[in-house]
Amino acid sequence: MKREVGIIGVGMTKFGEFWEKNYRDLITEAGVKAMTDAGIEGKDVDELYVGSMTPGMFINQEHVAALVADYAGLTGIPATRVEAACASGGLALRQAYLNIKSGISDIVVAGGVEKMTDVSVSTATVALAGASDEEWEVFHGATFPALYALMARRHMLEYGTTEEQMAMVAVKNHKNGALNPNAQYPFEITLEKAMNSAPIASPIKLMDCSPISDGAAVIVMASAEKIKEMKKDNAVWILGSGQSSDTLALHDRASLCRTEAAVRAAKTAYKMAGVGPRDIEFAEVHDCFTIAEIMAIEALGFCNFGEGGKMTERGETALNGSKPVNTSGGLKSKGHPVGATGIAQAIEATLQLRGTADKRQVKGAKIGLTHNVGGSGATAVVHVYGRDSK
Amino acid sequence: MKREVGIIGVGMTKFGEFWEKNYRDLITEAGVKAMTDAGIEGKDVDELYVGSMTPGMFINQEHVAALVADYAGLTGIPATRVEAACASGGLALRQAYLNIKSGISDIVVAGGVEKMTDVSVSTATVALAGASDEEWEVFHGATFPALYALMARRHMLEYGTTEEQMAMVAVKNHKNGALNPNAQYPFEITLEKAMNSAPIASPIKLMDCSPISDGAAVIVMASAEKIKEMKKDNAVWILGSGQSSDTLALHDRASLCRTEAAVRAAKTAYKMAGVGPRDIEFAEVHDCFTIAEIMAIEALGFCNFGEGGKMTERGETALNGSKPVNTSGGLKSKGHPVGATGIAQAIEATLQLRGTADKRQVKGAKIGLTHNVGGSGATAVVHVYGRDSK
Repeated sequence: MKREVGIIGVGMTKFGEFWEKNYRDLITEAGVKAMTDAGIEGKDVDELYVGSMTPGMFINQEHVAALVADYAGLTGIPATRVEAACASGGLALRQAYLNIKSGISDIVVAGGVEKMTDVSVSTATVALAGASDEEWEVFHGATFPALYALMARRHMLEYGTTEEQMAMVAVKNHKNGALNPNAQYPFEITLEKAMNSAPIASPIKLMDCSPISDGAAVIVMASAEKIKEMKKDNAVWILGSGQSSDTLALHDRASLCRTEAAVRAAKTAYKMAGVGPRDIEFAEVHDCFTIAEIMAIEALGFCNFGEGGKMTERGETALNGSKPVNTSGGLKSKGHPVGATGIAQAIEATLQLRGTADKRQVKGAKIGLTHNVGGSGATAVVHVYGRDSK
Repeated sequence: MKREVGIIGVGMTKFGEFWEKNYRDLITEAGVKAMTDAGIEGKDVDELYVGSMTPGMFINQEHVAALVADYAGLTGIPATRVEAACASGGLALRQAYLNIKSGISDIVVAGGVEKMTDVSVSTATVALAGASDEEWEVFHGATFPALYALMARRHMLEYGTTEEQMAMVAVKNHKNGALNPNAQYPFEITLEKAMNSAPIASPIKLMDCSPISDGAAVIVMASAEKIKEMKKDNAVWILGSGQSSDTLALHDRASLCRTEAAVRAAKTAYKMAGVGPRDIEFAEVHDCFTIAEIMAIEALGFCNFGEGGKMTERGETALNGSKPVNTSGGLKSKGHPVGATGIAQAIEATLQLRGTADKRQVKGAKIGLTHNVGGSGATAVVHVYGRDSK
């Protein structure tokens, strides 16, 4: 059952607030870029996956995969939407990978898209709340900042993590994002600005939160046989793919501040790739809130549980650190159109491993990782990528 | 790349209006039945797919696959929601099939669920409209009965199909559904009652429409190796799996009354199974409206284009006809909790091929088919099932 799979094309829109572009425009723009990058035409595509969290709530539209196939000129191919809240993009990547591995398809397109800014902030909050447990959390008034605030408080209590350490995640990611032309907020911020930003759900402040964004990201994946046939020499290989789930409701979990689904997904991905945390040279992780990045680097085994804040403070996750995290700027600076995020992470991994990440380049990187989370951690998807195939 | 896949367990709730059961109750009930039928426990399940159209609009809840895994006691396994409107269940089945074929999993659960009756009829209409093109159809006031009315009018004009022939689909399906203990409307209706029912969007009358329903359906699938190991002797085999897409908007299609996505999906499934329309001994087709069944049997090649109405009138699609269609009662009589429908179709196929469909049994059936459609036909999923593996 060995059938290697690689990424041969990537394309994304800038992330931001785009009143002049609709959902269809965004995904088509990203798709055309990805297919051009791959050097393929519509007729070459066997199948399509689209990750999108809640187009029903944001633009009154479901059935979006067929819609995307239609607008991208791919009408007729199987088109499947997948959803696990903010991990929808990661799911699209994994299903495309499984599809090629099954031998059914040779070239599969995986896209992610969300158009979040055409509704009021209150509607967006309700839409995003759909990622948490409606009956046990939303009904009682818990929004996402509140849920992550609970996780942050517990992390502070158990491990002594500080608000400054959380703010340092934001400062680092903005520093990276300032180098990314596709970032929604491509500018640096100071620790002082982060610490003095408005409280949202204490200890979470405005600068601990990723924004509401519009955007799309698309990758083209192919089997090793097809890549050989196409004589592609810049393919980036999927070495490992892991996904896991946890309870939707925070209160049902063994720990408030350990994301066990991510631990399990990483374990699967590492095992498949035949690597460990020490082999990872850079990672894109799901920093929907700054505490989420701290919990992510712990779950991925980059440090022990409880040491994520200190590792950040020591500068190890900075672009020039020993383990660069979120070189793209992460969700915090690059933006977070929820369905697109998992695919945008894969794009950053591809650019890094191609050696074309420009000023964000991690020199000589051969192995990278992405970590995409749904809700407060009920879904986690981890992929390991290599410049060389297994 | 040959790795056969079979269905080893099935379970569903009765379809209907259940004020005392929520989304979680429904899918858990169906899941427990399916796993009991398969003779497996939670620890045996490698992965989960859930088809659900718009829980965001119906119950304010997205991220439902992880939720279902949680409530079914399957926490920790990869849990993926798939969506293509009313074809969401068919997508879950196909992704589970691809997953096993890829060699990643041995036992995968595919479920479908929708809880549609907790909102007002107007909200349900808006939610369902998400399956059609928001910008080109919904915005202009076209609801689903209206879209299918356009298709029906064109079918009548091109082929001379009559309102009586459409009504005969409803009469036949209610006759079958009266034999199905899980049907929402398990009673017979007369041609007179159907013809005299209230106009909804002329020529479509109330008795041409499938209902709004609550319900869930689950199947357990496994690799041939696992089935052999488990010594399962009643497995039903997936011989072919096809999916295709078309434009969301009706006006963009070459024909208003030929569902090309279904034609393509059937072609793929037939080819993979090594069979043709003549070999199919029974079929569950997507009769969301009676005209949809007429277009379905044409697209599947059971008759020529334009002859679906006449074939129905001749009684060929009746339970005792030469090509029984919708022995379960179809969406019309059994009910149509949209995400569950594709899986419920697979359950009927399994019961028929096991020879356990009771009073609905098609005697000696060895090969059957299911046809699941999203929207007005922008997604179609066709599966061919066999009592024996290839």
